[in-house]
Amino acid sequence: MSERFVRGSELLDQIHTGGGARLVEAMSDIAPDLGRFIIEFGFGEVYSRPGLRLRDRQIATVAALAAMGTAQPQLVAHIEGALAVGVTKPEIIEIIIQMALYGGFPAAMNAVDAARQAFVAFDGQDDSAPLGS
Amino acid sequence: MSERFVRGSELLDQIHTGGGARLVEAMSDIAPDLGRFIIEFGFGEVYSRPGLRLRDRQIATVAALAAMGTAQPQLVAHIEGALAVGVTKPEIIEIIIQMALYGGFPAAMNAVDAARQAFVAFDGQDDSAPLGS
Amino acid sequence: MSERFVRGSELLDQIHTGGGARLVEAMSDIAPDLGRFIIEFGFGEVYSRPGLRLRDRQIATVAALAAMGTAQPQLVAHIEGALAVGVTKPEIIEIIIQMALYGGFPAAMNAVDAARQAFVAFDGQDDSAPLGS
Amino acid sequence: MSERFVRGSELLDQIHTGGGARLVEAMSDIAPDLGRFIIEFGFGEVYSRPGLRLRDRQIATVAALAAMGTAQPQLVAHIEGALAVGVTKPEIIEIIIQMALYGGFPAAMNAVDAARQAFVAFDGQDDSAPLGS
Amino acid sequence: MSERFVRGSELLDQIHTGGGARLVEAMSDIAPDLGRFIIEFGFGEVYSRPGLRLRDRQIATVAALAAMGTAQPQLVAHIEGALAVGVTKPEIIEIIIQMALYGGFPAAMNAVDAARQAFVAFDGQDDSAPLGS
Amino acid sequence: MSERFVRGSELLDQIHTGGGARLVEAMSDIAPDLGRFIIEFGFGEVYSRPGLRLRDRQIATVAALAAMGTAQPQLVAHIEGALAVGVTKPEIIEIIIQMALYGGFPAAMNAVDAARQAFVAFDGQDDSAPLGS
Repeated sequence: MSERFVRGSELLDQIHTGGGARLVEAMSDIAPDLGRFIIEFGFGEVYSRPGLRLRDRQIATVAALAAMGTAQPQLVAHIEGALAVGVTKPEIIEIIIQMALYGGFPAAMNAVDAARQAFVAFDGQDDSAPLGS
Repeated sequence: MSERFVRGSELLDQIHTGGGARLVEAMSDIAPDLGRFIIEFGFGEVYSRPGLRLRDRQIATVAALAAMGTAQPQLVAHIEGALAVGVTKPEIIEIIIQMALYGGFPAAMNAVDAARQAFVAFDGQDDSAPLGS
Repeated sequence: MSERFVRGSELLDQIHTGGGARLVEAMSDIAPDLGRFIIEFGFGEVYSRPGLRLRDRQIATVAALAAMGTAQPQLVAHIEGALAVGVTKPEIIEIIIQMALYGGFPAAMNAVDAARQAFVAFDGQDDSAPLGS
Repeated sequence: MSERFVRGSELLDQIHTGGGARLVEAMSDIAPDLGRFIIEFGFGEVYSRPGLRLRDRQIATVAALAAMGTAQPQLVAHIEGALAVGVTKPEIIEIIIQMALYGGFPAAMNAVDAARQAFVAFDGQDDSAPLGS
Repeated sequence: MSERFVRGSELLDQIHTGGGARLVEAMSDIAPDLGRFIIEFGFGEVYSRPGLRLRDRQIATVAALAAMGTAQPQLVAHIEGALAVGVTKPEIIEIIIQMALYGGFPAAMNAVDAARQAFVAFDGQDDSAPLGS
Repeated sequence: MSERFVRGSELLDQIHTGGGARLVEAMSDIAPDLGRFIIEFGFGEVYSRPGLRLRDRQIATVAALAAMGTAQPQLVAHIEGALAVGVTKPEIIEIIIQMALYGGFPAAMNAVDAARQAFVAFDGQDDSAPLGS
């Protein structure tokens, strides 16, 4: 287990309790190295850089995934992550509404669906879904 | 001139001095109503909502446009806007590097090009480009 | 209730009977303002402009959503809307086939799935789905 | 020269005088078969189908390319084509403004740039650009 | 039945036994010509060209669909097709991991889901799904 | 300099002589860590994995970037890279034509433009452009 993997797992646990373990598990059958890369590189090397607060990082990711409209499961997971690091539900909705300007209204509507799922999961401490990268 | 237009223009001026006037001018020949809608709706109704700080809004927009990779002129303009409301240059770069995870490395590389242009324009007080929505 | 909201709701009702009310309802739990913006701005300010027939507007939207491939629920809704303002089923299929040239064949195949759903709903007067923007 | 090629060339000439010849020429150095496929399949098999008016086909294509935001040269060419089959300039602008709802405002702004180029070319009978598919 | 249709059907059968028949069947209710075009043009004219091995063609298609992230059913089908022409499961996973660099990690994660489905179908000789283009 | 960086640089030199040094140089002013990540992670960890031949990796990347249509400079660079590891020019054109089926004809046409640039650069040993990731 590389130092980057440990750092990435710890970072991921701040966003999503047990998220690293679940991600590893979810990819373990056919693509374990993808799970490892997400933790080592995505969280261990990128998210853990000191130059931007975790709150700002989650705002950026929620915005990007909402606007792109091609990553619904990961958007749900990162909205939960955003809530975990202190972005409030009304702020999430503001970000999504703003994304209508850049990704279009359908993308924003679908992101509201993602937010609804994420809000329920966050409130219910339902941590069973794998954390998207 | 609607109240929304006035509010949008004032908001836009916080992000980009004279940006509203330049946007109106840039669209005035064939699509003046698109320029008006961007100011009235985009800035007057969405960006001016109280639920999210302008700094956070600019982080969201820079992230989304970098990840999408289809709006280079608007990305340049919004990086300038982000700098104007207090996002630092190193933070912009962090956001862009993070977007490699979501939009891919080519999108991040092209966003670095946009940042280079925006940094020069911001430092030089070169406000001649129209502000993208 | 703004004048724009009233105009947008009336416009929306031409495309989808009761669509405005369902849209407001669908967004009312966590993002009511997004529902309001879609009606006020999307339908009250954009679709209601006199310069383009509603039939042409629906052709444009069905084409765009089919080619983009990221807005399946909204594509279903707008195909229903297109039928409601006089675009025929064979014309819908023509638009979708043509979109294979621009969005690729998978996008066209998935749009056929959307059309199948929309045709059934339209024939059955099944108006229960929220209208996408 | 297949029957489909002849039919496609004739169709293309209705949209863009000499467009088929220019397209063939533009692709002749390294990808002549792509040029041939666009004419044979795109125009000879798809656009020439009787089920949708050419005017409606051009509305669909302009809408799709504007919303996608990844095909600027082809958007310019198809706006010219739309003008050639009777879509008016104000109608083009309406379509583009509407696409802000689906592809976002930056996509619409960039489509206005395409329209500006296309309007100039159309007025000046400047037919030198290759016709995009 | 055109010569192109016969050639396309035969090609498709190499990738997916009975795939042509299932595709025709799947589109027969509302868009039979789209099914025909996919076989005639997609497989009969493009895939059957001699200049690239079928194995390389499937690598290209799996890569593209994984990176685009908008064609999940077609990605499943083409991963099965890739396996049928000799791309191994570990090679499929390599392609998908590499696509994280270009389409982002969420696209790669969702492509792993597609691979999981395709691997099961391929092993079980479950040929019931229609083949995507 | 990490072991991953060295491995990535060596790999990159197989695709593009001096490519690693140029990439580092190109990013050194404002985003040196992005350049480093592309080499360390993109080439040192992903491309250098033993499970897929370099030729197949380049086919995959050219296909993906052509279909996405948002990474023209990187597409040029990777077409050069594909030529360097043994993909022939006619094979590149086959891949691009095939991508018309998935990303649409405009994406394929723009990829032909990229190929034209790459072919000239490759023939002329013009290695001055930075290598895209």
